[in-house]
Amino acid sequence: MKHLLNAKDLTKDEVLLLLDTAEAMAATQDRQMKKLPVLRGKTVVNLFFEDSTRTRISFEAAAKRLSADVINFSAKGSSVSKGESLKDTAQTLDAMGIDGVVIRHSASGAPHRLASTDWIDVPILNAGDGTHQHPTQALLDAFTMRRHLTGAKDGSPAADGTDLSGNHVVIVGDVLHSRVARSNVELLQTLGATVTLVAPPTLLPVGVENWGAKVSYDLDAAIAEEPDAVMMLRVQRERMSAAGGGFFPSPLEYHRVYGLDRVRMNALPEHAIIMHPGPMNRGLEISSEAADSPRSTILEQVTNGVSIRMAALYLLLAGDKESLS
Amino acid sequence: MKHLLNAKDLTKDEVLLLLDTAEAMAATQDRQMKKLPVLRGKTVVNLFFEDSTRTRISFEAAAKRLSADVINFSAKGSSVSKGESLKDTAQTLDAMGIDGVVIRHSASGAPHRLASTDWIDVPILNAGDGTHQHPTQALLDAFTMRRHLTGAKDGSPAADGTDLSGNHVVIVGDVLHSRVARSNVELLQTLGATVTLVAPPTLLPVGVENWGAKVSYDLDAAIAEEPDAVMMLRVQRERMSAAGGGFFPSPLEYHRVYGLDRVRMNALPEHAIIMHPGPMNRGLEISSEAADSPRSTILEQVTNGVSIRMAALYLLLAGDKESLS
Amino acid sequence: MKHLLNAKDLTKDEVLLLLDTAEAMAATQDRQMKKLPVLRGKTVVNLFFEDSTRTRISFEAAAKRLSADVINFSAKGSSVSKGESLKDTAQTLDAMGIDGVVIRHSASGAPHRLASTDWIDVPILNAGDGTHQHPTQALLDAFTMRRHLTGAKDGSPAADGTDLSGNHVVIVGDVLHSRVARSNVELLQTLGATVTLVAPPTLLPVGVENWGAKVSYDLDAAIAEEPDAVMMLRVQRERMSAAGGGFFPSPLEYHRVYGLDRVRMNALPEHAIIMHPGPMNRGLEISSEAADSPRSTILEQVTNGVSIRMAALYLLLAGDKESLS
Repeated sequence: MKHLLNAKDLTKDEVLLLLDTAEAMAATQDRQMKKLPVLRGKTVVNLFFEDSTRTRISFEAAAKRLSADVINFSAKGSSVSKGESLKDTAQTLDAMGIDGVVIRHSASGAPHRLASTDWIDVPILNAGDGTHQHPTQALLDAFTMRRHLTGAKDGSPAADGTDLSGNHVVIVGDVLHSRVARSNVELLQTLGATVTLVAPPTLLPVGVENWGAKVSYDLDAAIAEEPDAVMMLRVQRERMSAAGGGFFPSPLEYHRVYGLDRVRMNALPEHAIIMHPGPMNRGLEISSEAADSPRSTILEQVTNGVSIRMAALYLLLAGDKESLS
Repeated sequence: MKHLLNAKDLTKDEVLLLLDTAEAMAATQDRQMKKLPVLRGKTVVNLFFEDSTRTRISFEAAAKRLSADVINFSAKGSSVSKGESLKDTAQTLDAMGIDGVVIRHSASGAPHRLASTDWIDVPILNAGDGTHQHPTQALLDAFTMRRHLTGAKDGSPAADGTDLSGNHVVIVGDVLHSRVARSNVELLQTLGATVTLVAPPTLLPVGVENWGAKVSYDLDAAIAEEPDAVMMLRVQRERMSAAGGGFFPSPLEYHRVYGLDRVRMNALPEHAIIMHPGPMNRGLEISSEAADSPRSTILEQVTNGVSIRMAALYLLLAGDKESLS
Repeated sequence: MKHLLNAKDLTKDEVLLLLDTAEAMAATQDRQMKKLPVLRGKTVVNLFFEDSTRTRISFEAAAKRLSADVINFSAKGSSVSKGESLKDTAQTLDAMGIDGVVIRHSASGAPHRLASTDWIDVPILNAGDGTHQHPTQALLDAFTMRRHLTGAKDGSPAADGTDLSGNHVVIVGDVLHSRVARSNVELLQTLGATVTLVAPPTLLPVGVENWGAKVSYDLDAAIAEEPDAVMMLRVQRERMSAAGGGFFPSPLEYHRVYGLDRVRMNALPEHAIIMHPGPMNRGLEISSEAADSPRSTILEQVTNGVSIRMAALYLLLAGDKESLS
């Protein structure tokens, strides 16, 4: 594993190594404890061509807890926005002796382009590219499911090597524009879970029938199949129509047909968890009652995101892995 | 003391603990010395919903001198600006394992809302909220007054436990919109000082007569009472009228009636100090001659601000206080 | 050497000390090695009144590798943009106990103003001011030339004390607006090199005949003199005319007359190197073929920039120089 670009590229062994390492990282995250010295002297650049405070802070906190130095690079106002090519930006960072690049880009495939050339010779971590991939999100979701759907099923640390075989996950919402959905479908299948995608027809991508997941337009029917987890996707308000009734639903229609409200929450099996990658549109794709219920793992997902990013940075950047403790 | 939200909430003992600890911090601030390791492994987030480079840098420098990691979060361009609730932002930071939040917000009461809920379980430090409070500013002002108005009265460190009883402070300017004025009035009274507020009638808040301070429209009369310190507030130019003569004064009128110029400076008692929270409008609320005079403590206030913020971060965040040296 | 403001101010001994120290820094920059502890406990402020991500990151990486804390201050949205004077900004940073200021400003002379007053009592490093100076760029260019034009001439470290006497450098492009050109001409002459400036007449400054360099409008003639290095300057596209044929050339005309293309590259002596300060306009002042050719040192310049900035920060800020190793 040289880079972390795609959920699909990861073998099952690699996914399990990432998840197990993240469990080890989580065990160190007692707030009283000192920083881990494993990336001391390394410099990580957060190369964000698209704003995402939440993901940036998660990666920044993860890198700093491993004692790396972090340099934030926002493309706004940089020479990049003045037309410098991705190639020159990449070569420049490489020449500065940067040890790893976390990249967020609005263009699908930008991280892969970085990694597939000889522009830069350091690990690239994809922090979300266009509508394509968000592999650390899929990993933190799998980490969260492992803790709640296997073993003691109470959110406590999962045993090393545990997969998600036998579990059924329903992913609901704007699948068309969601890198979260795509990455999750791929990773969940690698871990042996089955997936149902639920969305209005206008928010499903062409070719979704080849993803290996079941596809449905009916959330209630999907819930009736008693899934182990239901993952609500963020809906962009600009993709709703104001009037409704047309090609795109209105927010009210969307919430009625595809929103997770109290009735649907109560129809879920008792052990099922409710997930959301954040930030939420409360009242649109999810009601506050569902978001704040005891079966919601939304905040645990945030916590687990730091552990997953620590694991990814550690596995990709640490030259000498012996010092993890 | 779990949070630092309000000057008014602080007991006299708490204020003195903060001021005495800040003296200890100041003693360590010889530029040649190494960082204090007391917050090593802790992460502080500067959550700034409103720009304030000066206050942000002061908190950032303070946290780094205590060996904390600092993550800057500017609300611009973040999911916050896309409508994420303060609740979700707070819960997300909490879930990431952040150890303390320094918050600046244009809405009065935002820090109190953060602290009064169970959204986030870490110390909240108010770095200025709307027209309401700016407690570290009031503390650094009191720290500065203690050094100049008590003991040797020469700016040298104050003895532990010293209060400001018997001192008289005149605060001049836009009291209506000033969190600095409000916080100072409260803290100065806790420390036993008396306060006179001087402002045009249009820049005084409703209910100011209940603040416990004397109120006047006449700066010269206030100066004639021989105060020990005169604190000039920053005036927003947009609150002046271009023409003058009406409800709001013109800048020229304001300077003539409420500005600290050479004549007024010379009318002050010899020992009196001149204060300003910065950034100054030179020629408006204060003349350059007064700002740069030997009796001005304006730059000392900046220096003392770092010591006060080190003390506040240390007292609120250090789990184990023994290692301060 | 208290500040680093001007290439011209530096004596030959000072230049050689900077270059030799940068070689020592480069020797430590193996990516596996730990940070140098020489600026531990020091705080460097990057005071950028003008965007320059590339230069800011280079300074930030350099400071962090020396274990300094770095605080980024972008003038946008700060009190500076609200009209605070440079004086008050400088005095505020000084009062906060900052140990060094790296300043980038669109106004020529701003760093000198900072350094020539008693506003601030710490080293000032000029990271580019208007059309005036960019001394670390000239130093990194000289460092790169020393490695390629002296000794083994293969890019390996230069021997301490080596100058550039006997070398001939051609600098091509918008000399009028280029701080890079001005700083390089001064520094190269200090090191004993001769310089030819090549530009269209409209992009040459008044008084250029007194710079001590040869001036030409003919790039091919300059190349025919077999220079040891040719340095292409970045051209601002807004200084080109769309139509061409008039006072300013069109991009196409510019490239044809002043661009470094394959034919001109092949006309250079075999040992000559091709330089550019970046970011490049590929196809305008330089073709991709030239930029990416083996004789291009463009990426080495970026790498060397970090070494030069480490050397400058170390020499100016380290109180006690003994710990460099």
